[in-house]
Amino acid sequence: MVRDRLQKLCDKLHEGHIEHALLCSYASLRYFTGYLATVEIEPSPITPLLGAFLWARDEKPMLLLADMEPGEGVAPEITRVTFCSYTIERPLHAVADLSAKLIERLKRFPRSKVGVEAEDMPVALLDALRAACPQLEFCDVKSLLGEIRMVKDAEEIQILREAIELCDIGQEIAKKVARAGISEVELFNEVRKEMEMIEGGRLQILADILSGPRTAAVGGPPSSRKIQDGDLVMADLVPRHRGYWGDSCNTCAIGEPTPEQRRAFSGISAALAKAIERVRPGVHVCDIDAMVRERVAKLAGSYPHHTGHGLGLSWHEEPRIVPYNTATLQPDMIIALEPGIYFEGKWGIRLEYVLRVTPTGAEVLSKFRHNL
Amino acid sequence: MVRDRLQKLCDKLHEGHIEHALLCSYASLRYFTGYLATVEIEPSPITPLLGAFLWARDEKPMLLLADMEPGEGVAPEITRVTFCSYTIERPLHAVADLSAKLIERLKRFPRSKVGVEAEDMPVALLDALRAACPQLEFCDVKSLLGEIRMVKDAEEIQILREAIELCDIGQEIAKKVARAGISEVELFNEVRKEMEMIEGGRLQILADILSGPRTAAVGGPPSSRKIQDGDLVMADLVPRHRGYWGDSCNTCAIGEPTPEQRRAFSGISAALAKAIERVRPGVHVCDIDAMVRERVAKLAGSYPHHTGHGLGLSWHEEPRIVPYNTATLQPDMIIALEPGIYFEGKWGIRLEYVLRVTPTGAEVLSKFRHNL
Repeated sequence: MVRDRLQKLCDKLHEGHIEHALLCSYASLRYFTGYLATVEIEPSPITPLLGAFLWARDEKPMLLLADMEPGEGVAPEITRVTFCSYTIERPLHAVADLSAKLIERLKRFPRSKVGVEAEDMPVALLDALRAACPQLEFCDVKSLLGEIRMVKDAEEIQILREAIELCDIGQEIAKKVARAGISEVELFNEVRKEMEMIEGGRLQILADILSGPRTAAVGGPPSSRKIQDGDLVMADLVPRHRGYWGDSCNTCAIGEPTPEQRRAFSGISAALAKAIERVRPGVHVCDIDAMVRERVAKLAGSYPHHTGHGLGLSWHEEPRIVPYNTATLQPDMIIALEPGIYFEGKWGIRLEYVLRVTPTGAEVLSKFRHNL
Repeated sequence: MVRDRLQKLCDKLHEGHIEHALLCSYASLRYFTGYLATVEIEPSPITPLLGAFLWARDEKPMLLLADMEPGEGVAPEITRVTFCSYTIERPLHAVADLSAKLIERLKRFPRSKVGVEAEDMPVALLDALRAACPQLEFCDVKSLLGEIRMVKDAEEIQILREAIELCDIGQEIAKKVARAGISEVELFNEVRKEMEMIEGGRLQILADILSGPRTAAVGGPPSSRKIQDGDLVMADLVPRHRGYWGDSCNTCAIGEPTPEQRRAFSGISAALAKAIERVRPGVHVCDIDAMVRERVAKLAGSYPHHTGHGLGLSWHEEPRIVPYNTATLQPDMIIALEPGIYFEGKWGIRLEYVLRVTPTGAEVLSKFRHNL
């Protein structure tokens, strides 16, 4: 799989008259080398970068990896080089060592262009490269990479299916555990525990866990608020499995929902179903967005967010399903659709499924059922 | 408190002949403005930066904050400006909007120097500023900021005490729950649940959870490995509370430890006690490091890591207690000491406490007891 992805990169760079690429985001490391990082991908005081991927025309692609990283999953096509990220013998100097190792290679390059991810690369690294390699011009390739990753390959689809299965399990537990007297954070702990037991290890999980009037706020982490009888409970679960994000949202009622809540739930559920019906290659995503917004408006409500988004190595990627986006759906895009309705200070409902665009329509990957 | 910290920044910049500072790391935002971020501090596909802190000579300090951030905790001394991080009306453009808002201000500055964190600032932001403000020179102030943050103020010490209390609770639960038949990840879930219930919300927690032969590997996330009778279990718990990291490590035996394990445990425990005795203002940290390594060598073992480190807005900061570091301890430094011993393929033991350097010695903040 990595081979096909590298070919796509080669072609896209060529189209853009860019000779090489030097990429630092975890998404790019994962996509182009297979590298599976451990759970915590946050700026570490030991090293701000886990690694860098260097793709140079006519050379073997190279992953420069922090020496503390086990480097699981790296494909045999990729040359591996480590840089010193942790030492007790001198002050920490991960960026300096990574820069030095990159400069060794880059200084031999003729006058050429190198694509980088300008939002992910720290100034410290690029300044060092610029100073040592004045013949190179660095340019941002964020949108080019977004295009490459928009349609998923077979391996990605398989991993995303597994991520969505984890969401299904989480949603079932959430529905089962949610009851009056339990706090949002306790509910979340029950859900996460089950998901991590199945994963066999820690999961990075983004989650909106909201109850009662908090559901009107669209999103937010679980709080110490105790769920009460008559509350709605919203769970938006977004776990990362082998680098890929699952996504899912459900809203359920504790005790008897009001007639307004029933009506809103049915309306959002129907809007989601209609949106799924509309999905097929060639459809403009803005048309799906408009159709869903119109339906929600008929319920005398609205939502301030996207109708959906692509899903993959990022939990919000192209195609964004939003009013301005005239892009068309293509087979093997994986998209989340998540219409909602929110009444300020009162309550909100959001329902979300993830689907694969097929040659003729949509395959819904989420298997859990929305029911109030 | 923010006022005193800003004064320290002003003085240090002045010493370094730097006129202004523009800081992007969460640690700096938290330290200089009071801003409490929500749980997930990872590069988001919506915005790579939650905010930026601009300190300019003779102007009110300013926090530019992503408009999706609630911005809890920001001190009244700080002017707040938001930039657009999320929109459905056009492609996401957080860095462009943040850059534009910064340029509005920076372009009025005369020829001067601006301190930045070169390892935390993305190229996309600094390139935009450089292009629009050629009269400004940007320089890295990472080490200057490290010096400012090395000694803690009263508010920081209070928050760190609370973070260490969370660790104490986590360690007690770990000891109680650890038993043959439970997996590492299940153990971790029990520990984290209790800690999050007390916190009243999610905690960012770094954790090494290792059992059996895995303890020889020094660190690693909890796996699906089931704990067995005769195992050692190592729990290194590092939760972030209100921006500040707690730290703690314990190793306990499931069933009867071997005589070698008992001897090693006593030796490491004694080495830690001796190190704590040695702590007082003016002591060179390399001397503590050397003394502890020597003691562990007498146990016919060693450890490949630091003897300790400063603790605060980062989980590994100055003073690093390592062989090369001739820095001296100062009152109100908060340091972790964590000697260990590891026998490849067999087992390892690490014991850690956190302490405050007092005017005459050390106050041990960790209250849980190490016992095998």
